Amino acid sequence: MFKVHVYVTLKEGVLDPQGSAVADSLHAMNYTEVNSVRIGKYLELEVENTDNLEKRIEEMCEKLLSNPVIEDYTYTIGEAVSS
Amino acid sequence: MFKVHVYVTLKEGVLDPQGSAVADSLHAMNYTEVNSVRIGKYLELEVENTDNLEKRIEEMCEKLLSNPVIEDYTYTIGEAVSS
Repeated sequence: MFKVHVYVTLKEGVLDPQGSAVADSLHAMNYTEVNSVRIGKYLELEVENTDNLEKRIEEMCEKLLSNPVIEDYTYTIGEAVSS
Repeated sequence: MFKVHVYVTLKEGVLDPQGSAVADSLHAMNYTEVNSVRIGKYLELEVENTDNLEKRIEEMCEKLLSNPVIEDYTYTIGEAVSS
């Protein structure tokens, strides 16, 4: 069993109203050093070791975990975990 | 200006209905090797270099970017970016 870390972020140029709202809140809290905030998803999957593990992770990312039209994804296969 | 990467995850033991729903969907799509899915937030901040940068990032995480009751956070200060 492996832990897979998936990071889903909005593509460059895609507006991030949620990120802008958080940035505005941080400014209102006097954290004026914050220039911008972009918010995405971080997923932790526990996956059995199978053939074509990387290919199947990419399929999961493209079919369900991210929206390829407006989002990019990256992933890392982390440490083995006891099942 | 630095890029700060913040990862917000649900604390161990906190139910993750969203993660369970995604796991069920992956199983329905025949990705039965997936044992569990936990979903969190991934934030990218661009922050001016200031005194006590780490302390202020931790304050932002604790006050706004995460809910300390049910969430944990980690962060890394990444590469310098041109302002």
